[in-house]
Amino acid sequence: MVFVMSRPVYSLLAGVVLLVPFASEPAPIILGFNAQSSQAERDLEAKFRSIPEPARMRDMMQRLSARPHHVGSPYDKQNAEWIRDQFAAFGWDAKIETFDVLFPTPVERAVELVAPTTYKAQLQETTVSVDPTSGQHAEQLPTYNAYSRDGDVTGPLVFVNYGVPADYEELERRGISVRGAIVIAKYGGSWRGIKPKVAAEHGAVGCLIYSDPRDDGYSGGDVFPKGPMRPPQGVQRGSVADMPTFPGDPLTPGVGATKDAKRLAIADAPTITKIPVLPISYGDAQPLLAALGGPTVPGNWRGGLPITYRFGPGAARVHLKVKSDWSLKTLYDVVARLLGTTEADQWVIRGNHHDAWVNGAEDPISGLVAELEEARALGQLSKQGWRPKRTIIYAAWDGEEPGLLGSTEWVEAHATELDQHAVAYLNSDTNDRGYLGMEGSHSLEKFINGVAKDVEDPEAKVSSWKRNQAALILGGQADARGREDLHIGALGSGSDFTPFLQHLGIASLNIGYGGEDDAGIYHSAYDDFYWYTHFSDTSFVYGRALAQAAGIAVLRLANADVIPFAYTNLGETVKTYVTELEHLRDSRAKEIAERKKQIADGLFGIVSDPHAPTTAPHVDSLPPQFNFAPLLNAVDALSGAAAEFDKAYAAWRDRPPVMQASATASATKLAAVNERLVKAERAFLLADGLKNRPWFKHSLYAPGLYTGYGVKTVPGVREAIEQGTWQDVDGEIARVAATIQREAALVRQAAADLASVR
Amino acid sequence: MVFVMSRPVYSLLAGVVLLVPFASEPAPIILGFNAQSSQAERDLEAKFRSIPEPARMRDMMQRLSARPHHVGSPYDKQNAEWIRDQFAAFGWDAKIETFDVLFPTPVERAVELVAPTTYKAQLQETTVSVDPTSGQHAEQLPTYNAYSRDGDVTGPLVFVNYGVPADYEELERRGISVRGAIVIAKYGGSWRGIKPKVAAEHGAVGCLIYSDPRDDGYSGGDVFPKGPMRPPQGVQRGSVADMPTFPGDPLTPGVGATKDAKRLAIADAPTITKIPVLPISYGDAQPLLAALGGPTVPGNWRGGLPITYRFGPGAARVHLKVKSDWSLKTLYDVVARLLGTTEADQWVIRGNHHDAWVNGAEDPISGLVAELEEARALGQLSKQGWRPKRTIIYAAWDGEEPGLLGSTEWVEAHATELDQHAVAYLNSDTNDRGYLGMEGSHSLEKFINGVAKDVEDPEAKVSSWKRNQAALILGGQADARGREDLHIGALGSGSDFTPFLQHLGIASLNIGYGGEDDAGIYHSAYDDFYWYTHFSDTSFVYGRALAQAAGIAVLRLANADVIPFAYTNLGETVKTYVTELEHLRDSRAKEIAERKKQIADGLFGIVSDPHAPTTAPHVDSLPPQFNFAPLLNAVDALSGAAAEFDKAYAAWRDRPPVMQASATASATKLAAVNERLVKAERAFLLADGLKNRPWFKHSLYAPGLYTGYGVKTVPGVREAIEQGTWQDVDGEIARVAATIQREAALVRQAAADLASVR
Repeated sequence: MVFVMSRPVYSLLAGVVLLVPFASEPAPIILGFNAQSSQAERDLEAKFRSIPEPARMRDMMQRLSARPHHVGSPYDKQNAEWIRDQFAAFGWDAKIETFDVLFPTPVERAVELVAPTTYKAQLQETTVSVDPTSGQHAEQLPTYNAYSRDGDVTGPLVFVNYGVPADYEELERRGISVRGAIVIAKYGGSWRGIKPKVAAEHGAVGCLIYSDPRDDGYSGGDVFPKGPMRPPQGVQRGSVADMPTFPGDPLTPGVGATKDAKRLAIADAPTITKIPVLPISYGDAQPLLAALGGPTVPGNWRGGLPITYRFGPGAARVHLKVKSDWSLKTLYDVVARLLGTTEADQWVIRGNHHDAWVNGAEDPISGLVAELEEARALGQLSKQGWRPKRTIIYAAWDGEEPGLLGSTEWVEAHATELDQHAVAYLNSDTNDRGYLGMEGSHSLEKFINGVAKDVEDPEAKVSSWKRNQAALILGGQADARGREDLHIGALGSGSDFTPFLQHLGIASLNIGYGGEDDAGIYHSAYDDFYWYTHFSDTSFVYGRALAQAAGIAVLRLANADVIPFAYTNLGETVKTYVTELEHLRDSRAKEIAERKKQIADGLFGIVSDPHAPTTAPHVDSLPPQFNFAPLLNAVDALSGAAAEFDKAYAAWRDRPPVMQASATASATKLAAVNERLVKAERAFLLADGLKNRPWFKHSLYAPGLYTGYGVKTVPGVREAIEQGTWQDVDGEIARVAATIQREAALVRQAAADLASVR
Repeated sequence: MVFVMSRPVYSLLAGVVLLVPFASEPAPIILGFNAQSSQAERDLEAKFRSIPEPARMRDMMQRLSARPHHVGSPYDKQNAEWIRDQFAAFGWDAKIETFDVLFPTPVERAVELVAPTTYKAQLQETTVSVDPTSGQHAEQLPTYNAYSRDGDVTGPLVFVNYGVPADYEELERRGISVRGAIVIAKYGGSWRGIKPKVAAEHGAVGCLIYSDPRDDGYSGGDVFPKGPMRPPQGVQRGSVADMPTFPGDPLTPGVGATKDAKRLAIADAPTITKIPVLPISYGDAQPLLAALGGPTVPGNWRGGLPITYRFGPGAARVHLKVKSDWSLKTLYDVVARLLGTTEADQWVIRGNHHDAWVNGAEDPISGLVAELEEARALGQLSKQGWRPKRTIIYAAWDGEEPGLLGSTEWVEAHATELDQHAVAYLNSDTNDRGYLGMEGSHSLEKFINGVAKDVEDPEAKVSSWKRNQAALILGGQADARGREDLHIGALGSGSDFTPFLQHLGIASLNIGYGGEDDAGIYHSAYDDFYWYTHFSDTSFVYGRALAQAAGIAVLRLANADVIPFAYTNLGETVKTYVTELEHLRDSRAKEIAERKKQIADGLFGIVSDPHAPTTAPHVDSLPPQFNFAPLLNAVDALSGAAAEFDKAYAAWRDRPPVMQASATASATKLAAVNERLVKAERAFLLADGLKNRPWFKHSLYAPGLYTGYGVKTVPGVREAIEQGTWQDVDGEIARVAATIQREAALVRQAAADLASVR
């Protein structure tokens, strides 16, 4: 999977330092350090920064993407062994951990138009002569969606736009049912696994998903190999398991998929789709879409094919067949350690996956080669005698693509230790040219802003932070001039941070560059070395920038005197969430009341066009008022605690060195502060998890039940309001408020401890 | 040309009656009448309403669109004579008035791609076998743009989106110049004549305009003849004269193009284009666009062809040749009168054009047949002994398509009489299915709302007013529930109301149904009887509804005791314009200051992608504060006068009949009120007209200099602020304020006169 960053990036970044230090000013004290230790850290970072080399990243990408390396393939295992050996050569304690997971691979696939004319879909990506790896068909996974159930169905075909719930409301208003039908949806608009889930909920018997050329084909530029965009036979593979219920091995929810783990029967696995699904190319989709009857779709449903897009079905009927090999496959997670000194029991974890759908040069090797160069640089410093305070763990996960398998199983298997020791998790995945995407726990917002201010953008020759800020201001957010920190996005899902953050409550970040190049090779055979070195970060200078950003982040987390969380940012962000939720309730109430009035007044009948009749939409019941007081009180408590912590931290940081009396006593007290801080993010865990998906335990962040990648913040409350389950709202508010109060108490205690450090 | 109504219509309608009368309530008193005269009027309207017949409209459409009938064609003259004879048969005093105008028709046309490959454009609409008139090639005008200068040019090709000024700013930011180039623009986004004007201003040597399939081709539905949309070889003809400077004959600005009128030399005619122009189909455009190099265009520039849209030029070079026959042609305006009784010197004028680009079933015959049925109905009432108080003039204009020639020359030739006698002008043009579009002078807003409340929508079986209101509410304007009158749009240009309203200051309305059907045959050979009777108002029930609406409006204007202007609506609307202008100044100031700061901070350099570099945009100087006081004072004066008028009108209307003492004295005083009201809209005329375009004299309404169809309200002030000519603003405010003060004084005097009627 991938950290998705579309172009332009303006909308993904959100907020900034009023006073940018001039070159002549001394560098500011790094968060978590004091003047003295900050200077030592900067000296270390200067050495670190010079080590990563673009040429090495290029060579490693060529090696790692030379053959298809999906879960279960020979090259996946060979890559894991090679990565382990690299870590070892760099001076790390590296090993491979294995898990055995359900990973279906296709045996039979068919898509055929059977009426009113016939067309048999190719379901095959063509060899491109200039691209040396595109023809490795014998090793390539065929184009398919993993965790589609087996099926052989025939039915009328209906076009459902992106296949999200709002699209089915549009169909319903026109009296078009998908019951017994095969739906065809465009990729995009949600995580792909949402499409068959919603289709099945509406009674469809099969689901096709295709890449429309308007979204990532010729509309955006020349197609591969002339340009970076998706060619007519290019297909997006991908998992369609119900990841928002739980990620990882479908047979071992909540526990590591070790050899002897207790497994569900396949028939009982809740995240496997209810209907068969296949992805197809736009070359294969065009004859199917052109065969549809029914009314023309609205403008925002139309794609870039030279046809009239219609709802269907008319006479169009399709046959869909999917059959997979459902045997278990072995995952190879590479895990490497650099042991800490004084705080060896506190772990800073860094990861990027190594498995791909095919050759995967961009996804995931572009991020992995940065991680490997960080590891080499840290190893080199280590060989020169340096050692981190805290233990650093670098991981190269297997099985991310089918559903975060490698990271999830490892996290589940090591849950007890991680709960005890994990300080933070730093993830990357795809890396391209442009802006530094930063998402994560808001307790790390100030920290990652500080890192971005200290990494140079290789094109603009200003800091990555300043370039992000410029894009935000030009995108219309003039207030980005006045903020000390740019807002970072909250994490939904789509990469390996999910089990760390949302299952175990480990503060997490996801970073990577992107936003300047369009691409149309996602999860296809064309995501390979030829493509990446022609159309993305061709000189690997953004690879180096990512290695610098992530490496500096790891160094700071591992070396800081005080673990660099900042709760003021967290408090402010949670406050905006609560305000959003209050507005959401009010806007939904207003919208529902207005809709009821429109229906009562018969307005939908009055405007219905007899040539294309429509009915009134469905409307929820009116929401009652909710008791937001517990949340508001909790936010106030957190803000108060954060202010106390800031004050104690500033006093500690600015204390003159001459005052340092007993170094040992001081260190002991600081250690107590840090032990508390390690657990700070855990305070947000809900003991019972989210409603109907207990695996997800974080009260602030989760992938949306109907968005998949997209985050829902304060998900228990937000989804209850969005979905109109009013009776749940007050209870969810209380549950979340309790976690925020727990966090506030922890932060207040940490502040008191820190204030006592002399 | 045409009254453009796109689908959905929500955005064109804007506001509504709180209390809808119940069926059991008595019908309200019609505006301009008292209880007694209102009842008589309603009885008359009931008779009138039952006369127009759909079947007759269908027959007339078939007759009038049987052959191409553009200016100068044999069938244009035959149609005029037939229409005159119809009016005469209906009992009207009908005649034809002729004018001799410059109307170029094509002699040579060529468009060829000459590099990097070659393609010769067909420039020919193909015959459609099921469509009996599509093959009348001998009589059809070839596809061309009238008033393109002659030219034979070759140059690089550059794509300019819709070819409006903002598009050239985008090109400039990317360093792409059109100097010496031929530009290719999509139809849409502005009136077509704007495209070559702006292209020439930027140094282009030629201009192609094509119909993109996303705008009116296959994206919207099946193409003709299977569906209503534009087929690959369909072309939109049309005038490209600089109509926002002045419409009508380019050689006789301001005076009627009579035989002996003084004429400009063609070389001196300012409204003829500066560069040659040709329209082409998307079939012909695709090879040209596919040949372009340069960067991919932004998403909002892309169309529906299955190609990557690029800016150009790359290697693409095009040859364009245009040569016309520039001889004068004769216009045949049909003008018919029904003489009034007591107020025969007050004229109510109704018009619709009869000329077309080819067969023109929709444009203009769909509107014309409604007008003819109104005329037949009025004639029938007249034969039964009824006569209007005021004189009714019905006109069928020639030469509207090339640039409102027939109406403009007639208005210019009869300016003195019209200034003296004209009460109002009511226009229609194209008519389709759906919503009653209403635009015009805001002194007629309440009046036309009253008409719309008394016409039944043939599909929804509620009033047209109520259906419009429903669409507005569903479109998000919940406040449309609470208003007494729906807001009507202001008039820009694009049909024959322009000379009446904007040159002579005659209160005008433009009405017509539309908004339910998509169409792609505008100004093509496929706008014919076959198309209209398969894909538009196929049963002519909306033709009947238009005849009812327009006929009732004419009857009310002709019979009212007090001419039915309502100044409260006018005052409110003008007040919103002034508020808009104040906000426009402030938002431009804010935007310019922000842009200057962005440039000063170097942000555009920071975000420029070295693979596709962009520069900072142009920025105007900061606006000073302007003196809006004269406008605000004038608006207050007008609102005050309007309140006085309303009070006097209500007192007159509600006076018990027993109080009517001397009928003669009363009638004389009422006549004095009406004489004043006839001139009320004239108060808005600027003696010197708008800056650089003195033909346009109305201070409130004009087509935009860079929009063409689209209105600019308070144009002198608005365009000065939009274009950054700050030094003009205060002077323009003063000029407009003086006209509003004049209007206020007139209305106050009319109120005093009306109050004195005993």
